[in-house]
Amino acid sequence: MTRRVDEIGKALGVLTIGDGGIEIRGIASIPAAQPGDLVFVQEEKHLQSALLSNAAAIVAGAFAQSAYTSKALLITSNPRLAFARAAKFLHTQESYTPGIHPTAIVDPSAALGKDVAIDARAVVYEGVLIGDCTWIGAGVVIGKASAIGEDCEIYPNVTIYSGTRIGDRVIVHAGAVLGSDGFGYVHDDAELPDAAIPARQSGRYEKFPQIGKLLIEDDVEIGANATIDRGALETTRIGRGTKIDNLVHIGHNCQIGENVIIAAQAGFSGSITIENNVVIGGQVGVGEHARIEEGVMLGGQAGVLPKKILRGRGIAFWGTPAKPLREYLKQLAAITKLGRRA
Amino acid sequence: MTRRVDEIGKALGVLTIGDGGIEIRGIASIPAAQPGDLVFVQEEKHLQSALLSNAAAIVAGAFAQSAYTSKALLITSNPRLAFARAAKFLHTQESYTPGIHPTAIVDPSAALGKDVAIDARAVVYEGVLIGDCTWIGAGVVIGKASAIGEDCEIYPNVTIYSGTRIGDRVIVHAGAVLGSDGFGYVHDDAELPDAAIPARQSGRYEKFPQIGKLLIEDDVEIGANATIDRGALETTRIGRGTKIDNLVHIGHNCQIGENVIIAAQAGFSGSITIENNVVIGGQVGVGEHARIEEGVMLGGQAGVLPKKILRGRGIAFWGTPAKPLREYLKQLAAITKLGRRA
Amino acid sequence: MTRRVDEIGKALGVLTIGDGGIEIRGIASIPAAQPGDLVFVQEEKHLQSALLSNAAAIVAGAFAQSAYTSKALLITSNPRLAFARAAKFLHTQESYTPGIHPTAIVDPSAALGKDVAIDARAVVYEGVLIGDCTWIGAGVVIGKASAIGEDCEIYPNVTIYSGTRIGDRVIVHAGAVLGSDGFGYVHDDAELPDAAIPARQSGRYEKFPQIGKLLIEDDVEIGANATIDRGALETTRIGRGTKIDNLVHIGHNCQIGENVIIAAQAGFSGSITIENNVVIGGQVGVGEHARIEEGVMLGGQAGVLPKKILRGRGIAFWGTPAKPLREYLKQLAAITKLGRRA
Repeated sequence: MTRRVDEIGKALGVLTIGDGGIEIRGIASIPAAQPGDLVFVQEEKHLQSALLSNAAAIVAGAFAQSAYTSKALLITSNPRLAFARAAKFLHTQESYTPGIHPTAIVDPSAALGKDVAIDARAVVYEGVLIGDCTWIGAGVVIGKASAIGEDCEIYPNVTIYSGTRIGDRVIVHAGAVLGSDGFGYVHDDAELPDAAIPARQSGRYEKFPQIGKLLIEDDVEIGANATIDRGALETTRIGRGTKIDNLVHIGHNCQIGENVIIAAQAGFSGSITIENNVVIGGQVGVGEHARIEEGVMLGGQAGVLPKKILRGRGIAFWGTPAKPLREYLKQLAAITKLGRRA
Repeated sequence: MTRRVDEIGKALGVLTIGDGGIEIRGIASIPAAQPGDLVFVQEEKHLQSALLSNAAAIVAGAFAQSAYTSKALLITSNPRLAFARAAKFLHTQESYTPGIHPTAIVDPSAALGKDVAIDARAVVYEGVLIGDCTWIGAGVVIGKASAIGEDCEIYPNVTIYSGTRIGDRVIVHAGAVLGSDGFGYVHDDAELPDAAIPARQSGRYEKFPQIGKLLIEDDVEIGANATIDRGALETTRIGRGTKIDNLVHIGHNCQIGENVIIAAQAGFSGSITIENNVVIGGQVGVGEHARIEEGVMLGGQAGVLPKKILRGRGIAFWGTPAKPLREYLKQLAAITKLGRRA
Repeated sequence: MTRRVDEIGKALGVLTIGDGGIEIRGIASIPAAQPGDLVFVQEEKHLQSALLSNAAAIVAGAFAQSAYTSKALLITSNPRLAFARAAKFLHTQESYTPGIHPTAIVDPSAALGKDVAIDARAVVYEGVLIGDCTWIGAGVVIGKASAIGEDCEIYPNVTIYSGTRIGDRVIVHAGAVLGSDGFGYVHDDAELPDAAIPARQSGRYEKFPQIGKLLIEDDVEIGANATIDRGALETTRIGRGTKIDNLVHIGHNCQIGENVIIAAQAGFSGSITIENNVVIGGQVGVGEHARIEEGVMLGGQAGVLPKKILRGRGIAFWGTPAKPLREYLKQLAAITKLGRRA
């Protein structure tokens, strides 16, 4: 879609300088920009390269106001955010044509909203609800009695187990598995000696029932090949606005708050509570029943012991076992010194 | 399925107290229990909330014997285990209707047992054997000459490479990959100078053949998006009763014993031996050719160096490189002290 | 395919000793060898067991030249490499029959080379290019305008997002996801107060556009369930000859060089540069904007901080934060001593 610079400026509510009639076709990075592209400059030191680029217009901070250029300028206190919104306004992401592909298999009892798109070979089981304008990619499998909200994007080859509930505007990337059984077993050392049902011939571990649910609230994004387990008996919950990166694992019964950021390959064992606005680095591991309170940050590869509670808005924890950054750095310095002396 | 409390008590071989004629419809956690549900209490401190819940009956220890209640009580030394068995007795997990979906693609040379269920869009290649009562989920791909036993559950979008052998009562969760090529290359620094076949134009690494097999024994459960590689020339083996969580990686030629527990995101490089009854925490990493002997426990995020041997039934190892817990805690305390002094 | 020993010796350019007329049917490990199999011996200490095995012929070093045996010998300075090449010469890996399965869905605008094989239920979208002799496995989904080169093997249930470019002789294992959206958001603390477009009802994070590309060069191999994100605005690149193991994560905008080895479950956040010939151990984590220079080795579970630069051809780095092995070992020894004293 093509838009005039002044239309973009108005939609974003930012100041337009220069020729508002310039037509914008897309967005780009500064080095890759072509005529018709919009770019952004977050820091003044990059302004010069933006001015020298092929871009047609620049989103920038107040520092760019008096730049001498034939390009149009959109001036705002947060260029990165304005650029992201401009991208949405220009519909730069892919869109889907509503309709059900003839090779998709949709159970007659499924209820689909309007303008739903279901791609080739997707399988939708009994009693599934799909909201308006949601896209189901090729090869996706949606189990019985699941519900998906409006404006969702479910990428190819995702598997959603039965009974999973997903809110509106949720994005699930390819290969993710939602609502799988949790990892819970009963050790049968303590045999039931006079049972009429013999112990299953399963050796020492017997599966504990995993019949709870998974609830994913609005505006969540889930990365490729991530896995989120259903509750054992209750409900695993992913709060509104939370963003989960690729290959993350979330175990059964976890309660993840709102606007939590979870970077790639982080893992949560069962029954963990993560409060709102927590930031979890890549490859972090959290033990069962731990609680990470509002606004805590965990550095990459940090490890949290079972049942541990971490608190402190804006406090960063590092290392295994995770400790406040200041303490971690002191220990690191001491170890380094010790190593040199050795 | 509905069962009377006394039927359940008899099946489990446990003492029934109160009205054995109460009908039980399902299982639940204490807070979520509805009339007709069975709940369990492992520790006496939770008995009161179970008594106050909506549950119709309670599985509990001897501590509950004289409780004053109209609910039925099932008294046993291991409530959690009895509850898990009651769930099985009540058929609370999903069941599958036998039959081959018309969109499944099953090669005529495949041999299927009785009451096999193959869901939409599954693909079964030449020479595959599938045992009685096994369910193959939608979108599963089973390579040539693989064999799957009886009573297995293969969830959607699993890929099984050719020649993989799987025992009875094995559960494989969605997206898992079984029998993929191992990660083995020959560095061609040592060029074969007078070869008539030129070095493949692959830069410096040439693929070593990965034509071994993968054997998964009875009663194994494999988590969502886990990956287990075939052997290079021999066979990767997962022993009977072993339970593997989501996103675990097991490399080529590994020999995993029986009743091993492997938590999420743990990773094993090639040719590792894990003996029976080992417990591996989440995100543990084990280097090639290491051996973890019978009954060892490895704490979350622990790291084991290549070729290392860990032994000691019931001994917990922590940290990287992994050391006995006692030693690990002493080092941790010393580092903490050092950090404070700095 | 059956080949005479002297044909193999000639093809490999190595010395043949003994009966060159022996027919070879396949390759095997020494313990598993059957009559007709070729085995290899890298170190002299294993020669005796090879001589006692059922193998028909042995690839070995000069140490085997005067062995007294009826088996044929192929003598070379690099037995392992010669064995790998012999395996290729014998076509021991699976091959594919060209053709498009009737249940594959190939958009009419896709352009396929000659001898392409597309298996059951694969979905190929508009404008896709597929080179000669490439195999697309069952259930693979290839997004719009992607291009795949010649002689590639794309295993079942792989998802390739639109616009991804893949070179020749690339192998992608089952369940891998290529070209998914990167993990990039704008925190909207800095609200655009007078915007005509209201903030998306997404809480605090707004998706930054992820519309860049993914480029995978020739001779790359990618493991099962690995995930590689497209660039945000530019291109994520995986260099020629690089080998990536199972469950590896590579974030947006990463620039991975040639002949890099990346072991299982390693993770790279965004905008990282890995130069040529780097070796990355399992479960290594690298923070955003870090740079690992030519020929560096990173030990398993090592962690590299954001923006960090590691350099030194052949230098091994260990631990978190990663330091040269020598320094790491000194620190380890000092901590061990300290722990004992405590």
